[in-house]
Amino acid sequence: MFSFSTPQPDRELAGAIRIFIESIIPFEKDSRNTSHGPTDDLRRELNKLAKDAGLLAPHVSQRYGGKSLTQMQRAIVFEAAGYSPLGPIALHCAAPDEGNMHLLEMVASEAQKEHFLRPLATAQVRSCFAMTEPSPGAGSDPSLLQTTATGDGETFRVSGRKWLITGGEGAAFMILMARTIIEGRDAGATMFLVDLPNPAVKVTRLIDSMDSSFTEGHAVVDIENLVVTKDDVLGEIGQGLRYAQVRLAPARLSHCMRWLGAAQRAHDIAVEHARIRPAFGVPIGQHEAVGFSLADNDMDLHVARLVTMHGAWTLDQGQRGSMESSRAKVIVSEALFRVADRCVQILGGLGLTADTVVAQIFRELRAFRIYDGPSETHRWALARRIVSPKHSSGGSVQ
Amino acid sequence: MFSFSTPQPDRELAGAIRIFIESIIPFEKDSRNTSHGPTDDLRRELNKLAKDAGLLAPHVSQRYGGKSLTQMQRAIVFEAAGYSPLGPIALHCAAPDEGNMHLLEMVASEAQKEHFLRPLATAQVRSCFAMTEPSPGAGSDPSLLQTTATGDGETFRVSGRKWLITGGEGAAFMILMARTIIEGRDAGATMFLVDLPNPAVKVTRLIDSMDSSFTEGHAVVDIENLVVTKDDVLGEIGQGLRYAQVRLAPARLSHCMRWLGAAQRAHDIAVEHARIRPAFGVPIGQHEAVGFSLADNDMDLHVARLVTMHGAWTLDQGQRGSMESSRAKVIVSEALFRVADRCVQILGGLGLTADTVVAQIFRELRAFRIYDGPSETHRWALARRIVSPKHSSGGSVQ
Amino acid sequence: MFSFSTPQPDRELAGAIRIFIESIIPFEKDSRNTSHGPTDDLRRELNKLAKDAGLLAPHVSQRYGGKSLTQMQRAIVFEAAGYSPLGPIALHCAAPDEGNMHLLEMVASEAQKEHFLRPLATAQVRSCFAMTEPSPGAGSDPSLLQTTATGDGETFRVSGRKWLITGGEGAAFMILMARTIIEGRDAGATMFLVDLPNPAVKVTRLIDSMDSSFTEGHAVVDIENLVVTKDDVLGEIGQGLRYAQVRLAPARLSHCMRWLGAAQRAHDIAVEHARIRPAFGVPIGQHEAVGFSLADNDMDLHVARLVTMHGAWTLDQGQRGSMESSRAKVIVSEALFRVADRCVQILGGLGLTADTVVAQIFRELRAFRIYDGPSETHRWALARRIVSPKHSSGGSVQ
Amino acid sequence: MFSFSTPQPDRELAGAIRIFIESIIPFEKDSRNTSHGPTDDLRRELNKLAKDAGLLAPHVSQRYGGKSLTQMQRAIVFEAAGYSPLGPIALHCAAPDEGNMHLLEMVASEAQKEHFLRPLATAQVRSCFAMTEPSPGAGSDPSLLQTTATGDGETFRVSGRKWLITGGEGAAFMILMARTIIEGRDAGATMFLVDLPNPAVKVTRLIDSMDSSFTEGHAVVDIENLVVTKDDVLGEIGQGLRYAQVRLAPARLSHCMRWLGAAQRAHDIAVEHARIRPAFGVPIGQHEAVGFSLADNDMDLHVARLVTMHGAWTLDQGQRGSMESSRAKVIVSEALFRVADRCVQILGGLGLTADTVVAQIFRELRAFRIYDGPSETHRWALARRIVSPKHSSGGSVQ
Repeated sequence: MFSFSTPQPDRELAGAIRIFIESIIPFEKDSRNTSHGPTDDLRRELNKLAKDAGLLAPHVSQRYGGKSLTQMQRAIVFEAAGYSPLGPIALHCAAPDEGNMHLLEMVASEAQKEHFLRPLATAQVRSCFAMTEPSPGAGSDPSLLQTTATGDGETFRVSGRKWLITGGEGAAFMILMARTIIEGRDAGATMFLVDLPNPAVKVTRLIDSMDSSFTEGHAVVDIENLVVTKDDVLGEIGQGLRYAQVRLAPARLSHCMRWLGAAQRAHDIAVEHARIRPAFGVPIGQHEAVGFSLADNDMDLHVARLVTMHGAWTLDQGQRGSMESSRAKVIVSEALFRVADRCVQILGGLGLTADTVVAQIFRELRAFRIYDGPSETHRWALARRIVSPKHSSGGSVQ
Repeated sequence: MFSFSTPQPDRELAGAIRIFIESIIPFEKDSRNTSHGPTDDLRRELNKLAKDAGLLAPHVSQRYGGKSLTQMQRAIVFEAAGYSPLGPIALHCAAPDEGNMHLLEMVASEAQKEHFLRPLATAQVRSCFAMTEPSPGAGSDPSLLQTTATGDGETFRVSGRKWLITGGEGAAFMILMARTIIEGRDAGATMFLVDLPNPAVKVTRLIDSMDSSFTEGHAVVDIENLVVTKDDVLGEIGQGLRYAQVRLAPARLSHCMRWLGAAQRAHDIAVEHARIRPAFGVPIGQHEAVGFSLADNDMDLHVARLVTMHGAWTLDQGQRGSMESSRAKVIVSEALFRVADRCVQILGGLGLTADTVVAQIFRELRAFRIYDGPSETHRWALARRIVSPKHSSGGSVQ
Repeated sequence: MFSFSTPQPDRELAGAIRIFIESIIPFEKDSRNTSHGPTDDLRRELNKLAKDAGLLAPHVSQRYGGKSLTQMQRAIVFEAAGYSPLGPIALHCAAPDEGNMHLLEMVASEAQKEHFLRPLATAQVRSCFAMTEPSPGAGSDPSLLQTTATGDGETFRVSGRKWLITGGEGAAFMILMARTIIEGRDAGATMFLVDLPNPAVKVTRLIDSMDSSFTEGHAVVDIENLVVTKDDVLGEIGQGLRYAQVRLAPARLSHCMRWLGAAQRAHDIAVEHARIRPAFGVPIGQHEAVGFSLADNDMDLHVARLVTMHGAWTLDQGQRGSMESSRAKVIVSEALFRVADRCVQILGGLGLTADTVVAQIFRELRAFRIYDGPSETHRWALARRIVSPKHSSGGSVQ
Repeated sequence: MFSFSTPQPDRELAGAIRIFIESIIPFEKDSRNTSHGPTDDLRRELNKLAKDAGLLAPHVSQRYGGKSLTQMQRAIVFEAAGYSPLGPIALHCAAPDEGNMHLLEMVASEAQKEHFLRPLATAQVRSCFAMTEPSPGAGSDPSLLQTTATGDGETFRVSGRKWLITGGEGAAFMILMARTIIEGRDAGATMFLVDLPNPAVKVTRLIDSMDSSFTEGHAVVDIENLVVTKDDVLGEIGQGLRYAQVRLAPARLSHCMRWLGAAQRAHDIAVEHARIRPAFGVPIGQHEAVGFSLADNDMDLHVARLVTMHGAWTLDQGQRGSMESSRAKVIVSEALFRVADRCVQILGGLGLTADTVVAQIFRELRAFRIYDGPSETHRWALARRIVSPKHSSGGSVQ
């Protein structure tokens, strides 16, 4: 039968993480926590604190010193970590590294795992995922890829501009997606693993963005005549778009988990404010307008948690879960944004300022509605499936 | 760990119910299915069909021939039943009887159980629950009770007007709530069990209402000098408001379960229509506007199902679940109404007509946002709890 | 400069209408006001009362005894009439007659005006507009027309099924849209004027529909081998789709005007209820949840009124106003539905019953979101225009 | 009769402003346009450009070199100015100076006008309005004022902390609101005019805020033993709360006007993007999901414009317009925020970055939902009025 209980060990792990997170909240005001996210220096200090607390990278496989957490366990652990925007950085379970680890685990060769995954999984280095490009290149529609890898099948020269590359500045390696042209034929999108720094790969600028929770922000990366070989291919030539989906389905859920924690934080701050801020004779929480907003927050958080748990359970059953992941992405990102938006409103003028973390969480959650596929892309995918004659009713008995 | 799987026997039971429901769908067009709901005659015919199929009242305790279903099992079974508005009538798990059975099971004396519950649980009779009154009497705020039971503690005379009493016409007995005045003192609200018909109890009219799925509709019931005694009291004198909550928490969830099935039905009809109805060159389902509406339906149904399951699980854990039941009532009733509203829109002119069952489901779900406490009452209850200093964060680790 | 003032004579006319409407409100409970709308008998009685009050058909041209009202004047007068669902029937400014009068005035020949328009404009008869068909025929996309008029250009035989034909039962004539096939070639959609009754035209059933404010409801009309000639053509052969637009742009606005009055009525009833219905210690209007709903109603009504006025002004400037009419249809129908939905919620159980007119207004306004083009069709038309490179910014200085 | 036409001279003025605004758009990327708004240096440069173009402070009275614009004219002119966040700064019609000018014009003595208003109205200096305080002080409920002015009626000593004081840094004078204590009695809130700099008034920090369009951002201002006299009182002692309303009703409308221009800009950028950005085979604007968002933008902008115009007209009729101003504040701020939110979504990743001005406009409009009274305060004011028995129906004939 279905169940919503959490095993004691998982509760304890999450509890330990929540205590740890409280200890790093003061770093939110650290000057190294910039508008382009935490600096690498701050990240290293936080990683060390997490390591000392025995909480670094709990999700990765035991092979790399982690606890090989299931998706259901991650749901609990990542939410606890997300209670501070710095939490996932500290525990080394933030994007894009967390998704890259998953992808490498699924697709990389043993040699690639030793060379790229081991140092990444143990937080010795950071990585980036270089897929998106400026218009009219790859975005919501990754098939528009303009970066090309041209060669004979053994050696390729890659050129192009990558854009919004999270953590591109300072990454030790990059997973690079390019359209492969072999002997003049389009061989589809391919992923390459590229050690950095490399003189053919330049961060030309950091992009000023609404969000600021990713280490070293988002870069524009110009690639000019980068030489890669067959050995640098991740998986197989021409399978890049498929691997992107392998990476994205769980990556979207991880976002849901972490940002659920962040939204819960904003809500807790709003509740506390509503209990003490007076207006028109009573604490504002006793005004129905504010109280109902808090009730709506409570319900949105409840829904986001259930939908995320269900998505995690689906993946743990061994299903691809692309429909569940699309649903979860839309439902959770929109619910959490509403939560953050209401928290800003409840805090009033204070909510607009950096005096609380709520304004940042609001900005992060606005971005979440776009990252890893905007709501529109997922609704489109859901719609296509529903309308397809092969699709049967989503009725109760499954 | 949490789980969303359904045991094989429960799936099979639900599957059998869905097949049975398909067989009774033709009765939706029966002339005995009136604007005041199915007549008693139609109900009896449907009950007989369900009995022949071995599916009558599966939820009631084994003592009365049922399967003593848990709330989690009811979630699956009632949704399957709700696929037709006639389904819960046929299976005898509709309001108000289903909630009355629960209340009697929890509170009635053994003698009362034999006299009232046994014939009810075996579908030999119907019952009604007489609490609500016209303004300024008991409504969302049941403490406004105007009907009085005046007496000496042994015998009472009850007078008052009850309003929107579902199934009042033709009920074999009534659970009657009245303000008890003993020797001039207000002794609080009390529930009485009253066999019907009784010359002191008159159905003065049937109310024309937007919904039409309850047997014999909603009555205005005038009570004048009805004599009841201490033995007719359900539970204890003065505990009526508390028992109303005992009845309502699971009753709200049962509504969620049944109407989830109805909304799924509307969605299935809309999907089928979207696959075949052409407009501007393609089936309308290929227009994003329609496809996105179907995707939103899919997500709302998903959320409604998860929230209902969670509420059922909470009750099965032995918790009172009043916060969960409030949440579920608001989330589910609003989500399902949106589903029905979108289905009407997708069907266009057809959606406004009785040519499909969608228009009825739309009207039923509009009513659901008010029955068993309007959304406002539940948001208010949630808000009060959240703002209370004793309430701790609803965070992940519970 | 822009202005929002109403001339004194127009205020006086609207004031007189509002007084008249109060006098006919009792007819809302008349048994001749059925689920298929007012009967013809009731309509005639109401028309007589309006005539006696000097208020019959004030909008029609002076040629037919009216006041030749501008669209801006209609905005005020029709809103006043709409305060009761019976008002537009009484004043003879309801759909479909009102739109048919407009169309005949614009397109009909002098002979046709004398034969069809004069008796219609003077309320001696009713008419219908027979365009829509069951799926897969003409609906939101009128080009799907399945009814055919086959002939040699002089004489045609028309066959087909028309569906949701408002007022089809009892109409003295029909404006019939059919695909014209001349000598085997598709000559486009044509409108024909057909006197009724005619043995080739049969009302095969009245459709049970959510709304009930149109005289004699909505009919299914089967046409079999109806003979019409060139003289019966309204306007020119092949211009039917264009005339449908001529009819619809102002017809949509008229709907906005009338239903604005109905929504205002629902709001007024909700305000009155909120002032007196007690709950939890105070009249419910003093609960912010209810008060804020009323404030939202107030704002939605304000917006609906301004947008309708602007649309009327645009038409009065001699513009085609198709963009303004699409905007107004979407904004107003959705705003007014929200108003009605909130009123139902504020009234609680009472709102679901026919004890007030609010439940009917709710159902009418649900239908309005579909009639005369569902919101989706208009959003699509707006979108196409906005995205077109020829369209310039809708900025302030116009 | 009502009218929506704009006189030719007003169109021409707005047209000239729009051309001017295009010329200053490059300054949006100027390094002096900081996260705390434009610096004073940038402001002066922009003011000079506006003066050279003959467009500086067109709204102020002719006495100070302006055009004495009506509110209706301001609606057109301020929207044109708002097309760039720098526009109102350049034209010197931004908050808080614009509202301060209005207040001084209404309330100040002749001597105060010469000393304070003349240099302000001619853009020689900037000013600030010091009312709001940190919790638990004056915010949405200004009566919570904690800053005190204690004295004998002739001389006062003012102490307190003011918070979110826009333009406090670098202002030449401040309108300071304090609770007046005369001989130990609370004499109500009083406004004082205070030349700056003054050693008793210190900007202790600039607040990091979500918005960044106000010159020199928002300051925390600490006041300690500031000596003021009766001559420094603006208007009368004890009338501060009343004057705050005098200032706020038109100030809210001015915000609507300016930010309408900003939202139009965001929409224009989104439309242009939708016409050229490809995805899944066509420009994204041809996907209904994007097209419908643009249609919703179009309708929200239309509504915002009409409601703002109506509010301006009301004020020009000499009415206090507090209900209209509350309505306009809520309707317009919420509609424009939806526009900006949709524009961000349409731009996708690009929308999150500072590469277009859309992300800033999104942040400004989030703030607008709080500035000058959050939506909740205005809904509350509307609700109180609607529920009051003296309030009559808002029906059509006014």
